Amino acid sequence: MDISNAQRAKVLVHALPYIQEYSGKVVVIKYGGNAMVSDKLKDYVMRDIVLLSLIGVKVVLVHGGGPEITELLNKMGKESRFVDGLRVTDAETAEAAQMVLAGKINKNLVHLIQNKGGRAIGLSGMDGAMIKAKQKREDLGFVGEITDVDVRPVLDVIEKGYIPVVSTIGCDDEGNVYNINADTAAAKIAGALKAESLITMTDIDGILRDKDDPETLIPVIKTDEAPILVRDGVISGGMIPKVECCINAIKWGVERVFIIDGRIPHAILIEMLTNEGIGTMFTR
Amino acid sequence: MDISNAQRAKVLVHALPYIQEYSGKVVVIKYGGNAMVSDKLKDYVMRDIVLLSLIGVKVVLVHGGGPEITELLNKMGKESRFVDGLRVTDAETAEAAQMVLAGKINKNLVHLIQNKGGRAIGLSGMDGAMIKAKQKREDLGFVGEITDVDVRPVLDVIEKGYIPVVSTIGCDDEGNVYNINADTAAAKIAGALKAESLITMTDIDGILRDKDDPETLIPVIKTDEAPILVRDGVISGGMIPKVECCINAIKWGVERVFIIDGRIPHAILIEMLTNEGIGTMFTR
Amino acid sequence: MDISNAQRAKVLVHALPYIQEYSGKVVVIKYGGNAMVSDKLKDYVMRDIVLLSLIGVKVVLVHGGGPEITELLNKMGKESRFVDGLRVTDAETAEAAQMVLAGKINKNLVHLIQNKGGRAIGLSGMDGAMIKAKQKREDLGFVGEITDVDVRPVLDVIEKGYIPVVSTIGCDDEGNVYNINADTAAAKIAGALKAESLITMTDIDGILRDKDDPETLIPVIKTDEAPILVRDGVISGGMIPKVECCINAIKWGVERVFIIDGRIPHAILIEMLTNEGIGTMFTR
Amino acid sequence: MDISNAQRAKVLVHALPYIQEYSGKVVVIKYGGNAMVSDKLKDYVMRDIVLLSLIGVKVVLVHGGGPEITELLNKMGKESRFVDGLRVTDAETAEAAQMVLAGKINKNLVHLIQNKGGRAIGLSGMDGAMIKAKQKREDLGFVGEITDVDVRPVLDVIEKGYIPVVSTIGCDDEGNVYNINADTAAAKIAGALKAESLITMTDIDGILRDKDDPETLIPVIKTDEAPILVRDGVISGGMIPKVECCINAIKWGVERVFIIDGRIPHAILIEMLTNEGIGTMFTR
Amino acid sequence: MDISNAQRAKVLVHALPYIQEYSGKVVVIKYGGNAMVSDKLKDYVMRDIVLLSLIGVKVVLVHGGGPEITELLNKMGKESRFVDGLRVTDAETAEAAQMVLAGKINKNLVHLIQNKGGRAIGLSGMDGAMIKAKQKREDLGFVGEITDVDVRPVLDVIEKGYIPVVSTIGCDDEGNVYNINADTAAAKIAGALKAESLITMTDIDGILRDKDDPETLIPVIKTDEAPILVRDGVISGGMIPKVECCINAIKWGVERVFIIDGRIPHAILIEMLTNEGIGTMFTR
Amino acid sequence: MDISNAQRAKVLVHALPYIQEYSGKVVVIKYGGNAMVSDKLKDYVMRDIVLLSLIGVKVVLVHGGGPEITELLNKMGKESRFVDGLRVTDAETAEAAQMVLAGKINKNLVHLIQNKGGRAIGLSGMDGAMIKAKQKREDLGFVGEITDVDVRPVLDVIEKGYIPVVSTIGCDDEGNVYNINADTAAAKIAGALKAESLITMTDIDGILRDKDDPETLIPVIKTDEAPILVRDGVISGGMIPKVECCINAIKWGVERVFIIDGRIPHAILIEMLTNEGIGTMFTR
Repeated sequence: MDISNAQRAKVLVHALPYIQEYSGKVVVIKYGGNAMVSDKLKDYVMRDIVLLSLIGVKVVLVHGGGPEITELLNKMGKESRFVDGLRVTDAETAEAAQMVLAGKINKNLVHLIQNKGGRAIGLSGMDGAMIKAKQKREDLGFVGEITDVDVRPVLDVIEKGYIPVVSTIGCDDEGNVYNINADTAAAKIAGALKAESLITMTDIDGILRDKDDPETLIPVIKTDEAPILVRDGVISGGMIPKVECCINAIKWGVERVFIIDGRIPHAILIEMLTNEGIGTMFTR
Repeated sequence: MDISNAQRAKVLVHALPYIQEYSGKVVVIKYGGNAMVSDKLKDYVMRDIVLLSLIGVKVVLVHGGGPEITELLNKMGKESRFVDGLRVTDAETAEAAQMVLAGKINKNLVHLIQNKGGRAIGLSGMDGAMIKAKQKREDLGFVGEITDVDVRPVLDVIEKGYIPVVSTIGCDDEGNVYNINADTAAAKIAGALKAESLITMTDIDGILRDKDDPETLIPVIKTDEAPILVRDGVISGGMIPKVECCINAIKWGVERVFIIDGRIPHAILIEMLTNEGIGTMFTR
Repeated sequence: MDISNAQRAKVLVHALPYIQEYSGKVVVIKYGGNAMVSDKLKDYVMRDIVLLSLIGVKVVLVHGGGPEITELLNKMGKESRFVDGLRVTDAETAEAAQMVLAGKINKNLVHLIQNKGGRAIGLSGMDGAMIKAKQKREDLGFVGEITDVDVRPVLDVIEKGYIPVVSTIGCDDEGNVYNINADTAAAKIAGALKAESLITMTDIDGILRDKDDPETLIPVIKTDEAPILVRDGVISGGMIPKVECCINAIKWGVERVFIIDGRIPHAILIEMLTNEGIGTMFTR
Repeated sequence: MDISNAQRAKVLVHALPYIQEYSGKVVVIKYGGNAMVSDKLKDYVMRDIVLLSLIGVKVVLVHGGGPEITELLNKMGKESRFVDGLRVTDAETAEAAQMVLAGKINKNLVHLIQNKGGRAIGLSGMDGAMIKAKQKREDLGFVGEITDVDVRPVLDVIEKGYIPVVSTIGCDDEGNVYNINADTAAAKIAGALKAESLITMTDIDGILRDKDDPETLIPVIKTDEAPILVRDGVISGGMIPKVECCINAIKWGVERVFIIDGRIPHAILIEMLTNEGIGTMFTR
Repeated sequence: MDISNAQRAKVLVHALPYIQEYSGKVVVIKYGGNAMVSDKLKDYVMRDIVLLSLIGVKVVLVHGGGPEITELLNKMGKESRFVDGLRVTDAETAEAAQMVLAGKINKNLVHLIQNKGGRAIGLSGMDGAMIKAKQKREDLGFVGEITDVDVRPVLDVIEKGYIPVVSTIGCDDEGNVYNINADTAAAKIAGALKAESLITMTDIDGILRDKDDPETLIPVIKTDEAPILVRDGVISGGMIPKVECCINAIKWGVERVFIIDGRIPHAILIEMLTNEGIGTMFTR
Repeated sequence: MDISNAQRAKVLVHALPYIQEYSGKVVVIKYGGNAMVSDKLKDYVMRDIVLLSLIGVKVVLVHGGGPEITELLNKMGKESRFVDGLRVTDAETAEAAQMVLAGKINKNLVHLIQNKGGRAIGLSGMDGAMIKAKQKREDLGFVGEITDVDVRPVLDVIEKGYIPVVSTIGCDDEGNVYNINADTAAAKIAGALKAESLITMTDIDGILRDKDDPETLIPVIKTDEAPILVRDGVISGGMIPKVECCINAIKWGVERVFIIDGRIPHAILIEMLTNEGIGTMFTR
């Protein structure tokens, strides 16, 4: 990058007002998609997070991991079956999901953050019984619906100076473990934390009025405009539940929710610390 | 159990001096063997731990999980190979171990403690880069040797009121993950914590002078007596490294180390809160 | 006691849910009757209290001491005169009461607790002007009626890690000292502390429907049932003011009030830490 | 008192350097003699103490009470017997002493301080097992010699904003209670607190070179001058043990020890907050 | 001063109830007039303040400094022009005022307090942007009207154990600096602090019903009586805005406001710590 | 500046290791020269400082102000006289210096920081008697030599979340005020704070081996190399005392001292947060 150190200093100083805005605030990042697959993008995200943490942002990293669950099930010779886009989850599948999410992805992310100079502790919804859940639909097995979120473990870990990395496994008092949709969990956690922002990383540009024309990106959607956009078909298919999570997060107390394009390097920093809004922002 | 409530009250009161002795102290429990296999024994251990925590003991639960790693590898159609009793650990095996230890066993133990009314958070050696490791022997792959232990995450979690449950995965600065022997890790952690006791749960009665006669149990071994017992063949085979861990723990600052028989229900409580010493105690 | 250590461990574990229920809660014990006379019972009560304190219960011990006041007055050649069951209290009698309660009984209890391994500080209603009082009836002299209770000294002493032992002497701004009924004072203090329980130790089985048949013990009385039981003569004589104190304590904010039989060894532990309710519980 | 308010203000300002000198420091006052008998002097002492407390001095009031013990024993028809100036103390006498000191005098002083607007808590050597003692001489019965002083209860009570009032009863682990010489106890406590000053109130002018001539008052005695004064008979009789306590207090860490004339109104304030040294000061 | 030390002690004790009344309370002193000109009076005021601080009063010293601003302007050959009693303040005059107030007077007062044994930190309205202001009237230039007061710097400095000395310079977000009337600023600051008292030092006896007869001093004025006194001409001329400040301070939350005669030595102590009310007190 | 937001994000991330290095550390900046004259440079410096403060650096800003003192003296018609490069300082000059430094420059810097979004409090060496001084040379009048530095006020102000801005006025116990060389004071303060770095802003490139050739900049000088450079004439004239201050700062406990070119925009950030070392670094 052909930028002089004088220019670098200027860039840092230009970031000042944005840093001031977020200093001391809670920001929940729902991590997923390409940004979690590509090693390069993963590296960028981890650096972004460590930087945010250093400038005083209380980052909470929430992740899912569907593809890697499928991968392990394949290795185990177990076929994945989906109903209405949701994985049918028998006991063995639930256990595989738990191992992949809480054991592999979660700890690897923690490790990456530590190696970039940050301090992190990985939590699952089972730690401190953080995410209480029940069966969503009988035919889906151990697919869970959140009944209660207790964010004390997240706050305790932040208070001790760590970045909490959260895998979205739920549990109940009978000892059952549930696979929980990460978008929903992130929204619930962000709401319970009264977060300043929830940033959802996806593999799309944001909400486009014409899905084939990136120029038609809608930069801001107010919560009451969303149903109209659904009705008009602008928001459709798999985006409907994602947008619902965004709207819910705001209802539950988050200030601003962003859907950003995780394929762009340093998308988080660009969104947070420059004058460029990328993706779509949901707001009251 | 045919014990009147009057007798129950007496029993509680008889435990008083033992409770006073341990109140506020750190006790590391190396959990393994049958006590971790049998659901009934597991249930007992969890209750013991929650009780200790309630009476003011700072319990740290450290676990391994060899058999369950083998089980997953089998499901994945991967054969386990051992050299000198150590599992040859390629990258895939290391990942499987990480998933089983940090994802499955660790979180399940956390869940059990929570369901007994305790509060727990699961940590691996990757969280807060707690266990730094390097390759032990080139031919064994990702079998790790501990280079450094940083117990701050354990202390932070205790300070916030949780029981830390630790899975013994190690990591280095290059991003590698290592499988670590749980006895060694428990000893290192107990030493770094200057624990009052380290309790190792095994499937033997303790150290027997004549291994076929339980009546010959050696109740107390001083650190300088151990080499003589090894020379005399009293301590032999797989017990040698275990005993080494006990001796090391004392060198590193633990007051007393116990090898107890995990097959006995509530072995921990009997050892700690009654006048009965079960198993063998190592001491300065 | 012929109970194996295995059984002892079970007993401890069975106490777990009861311990969890009381952990961190305030429990006021009104100590009196035989349990304060018999050396053996006294020893049991002290052990019970130290145990409760160790498992995290915030115990407050409130005591009276009528018989010992009489004893001192006798030694001083002074006759005790009673009107309506209340001691006529001239200045010399008041001073004798103060000496016996705050100087003898209080400090002896503190000493016993210390010798069982607990930490205690004795307080009277004069310390920190905790119990403000005025004359109850002119003809009774320095028999006091509480006008105000300031529990800060009790809380301060608890916060510093001691078990407060309270003798129920009251005082006013003119320098007068009053003898205060210990049941009333205990109820007031428990109410001001919003205690989880007030346990009153007496020399009866509890409230019996037929006072000659222990089988007719009433285990639970709701506050609005009490007047009916008085009307029906089930509660009568000296029990009426005692029960009034119980009912008042609940009105003032205590969750549950117990009248237990202090003649039973370890009655407190049996009531609190087993499934056996002994005596009568008053509740909302 | 015919002093204008302008003069009053000047007086206050003149006290400034003395107040600055003592602010935040621990001062132990051994209270006794006439100042504890005369109601007027008692009132003055209490006001002095409350004032000192308000200007930031950490006052600890230590008292004895020989005459009042005798008075109670008389009332009980029990004769006091003395050997070498020490009361022969059987169990009944020890109990009487405990009641008078810890129950009557101690609490009355607390009450007086409270009524002057101060906050006080009364402690005996039994509270928190503060004064550990053993038998001094077999023929004296329960006359105690201090074996250990634990000033944590005093510090805890100060930290919570109270003036600790201490009666000098000692105890041992067997449950025995001992009468302790108040001068010795005050010196031990002051030493353990590393007090700035220990002020002993007596009924003499101070140490006089010629005991019949108040003009020969010795204002300052260095610790190594004391033995010479004893040898020369300047310090003699009952003053010898008192002076020994003063010298010991300095050895144990007190900065300065004063013997002042408690018969002078506000002797404490005059000593501490004016340019007038009254009585004799002992120093390194 | 011919006062014996015995009398001095009495005087100190007589001050006890007044000290108790003010202990821990915030008292704002508006310092000005002769008391700030005469070196002797200045010395008295500083001692008074250090004494108050030692006895636990949280003193805030607010000062102006008109005459010294004029003096500097004269040295700079710049004439002072007044409109309606307010100094026409061009940029150079504003800078001179800032230098004199925040640089000379403020720091000299801090220095005096330190040399009397107090601890002080000087603050201006620019520190922590404590006093936000805007232009009062266009023709007056940089004469400011307070728009907002943020007393956190004052509280922070008190909490760290210093006496805050405040010079009444205001500022805005554009970088302008304003000269602020010290009476108004003191009232605003006292109000924002919910001070116990605001004491305004002036060169008059107080409010006199007949301005030529000191015997007609009005000791207490209720806020609703003030307008009547203005109407009747009792309060007139330069006293009108001063009295308005007093009334406003009470509206903003100050308990009692005093106008005292700063020409009397130790006027502050006489007012606060004796039974003599000097000057006029404003109250609800 | 033609830099895309993607590049901006990269720049921020590249600063990460530098931010980590300084996070939580104390950095003293000696501010002066052109960087304090040019409004543009001043603006840059303030932004740099606010940014450093936000990323967790504990910045202490120390300033002098010779030219502005001269300016005021000129306005007052007072000629400045210098002996050996030091201003002859009579009482009036000392007062002018105090007004300019503590009243004008100091508060203006505070105001600028506040307006950039930082929080600042201005301190002089008189606040908390931070800089104790005595006369340096009789013929120079009130030119001071530091006798003692008490950095508690600086630490208290940092702890409360403000950036301390320090003007280097000294004082003594007699009430005299001294003008103190700002380089010396900065070095003393940095030493007392055991600062990570002391950054001295000057109007030169750094130490040049050939003063006419910027290419000969010496990037690092070890403390023991400095005398040789002086002997060889590389360091000469006015740079000798400046370099002495740098060497002393290191002796007094500062890790690294920098002489940087304040004429370069954002010189501080370039030095601290990029890979470019500008100017000369002094080190052990």
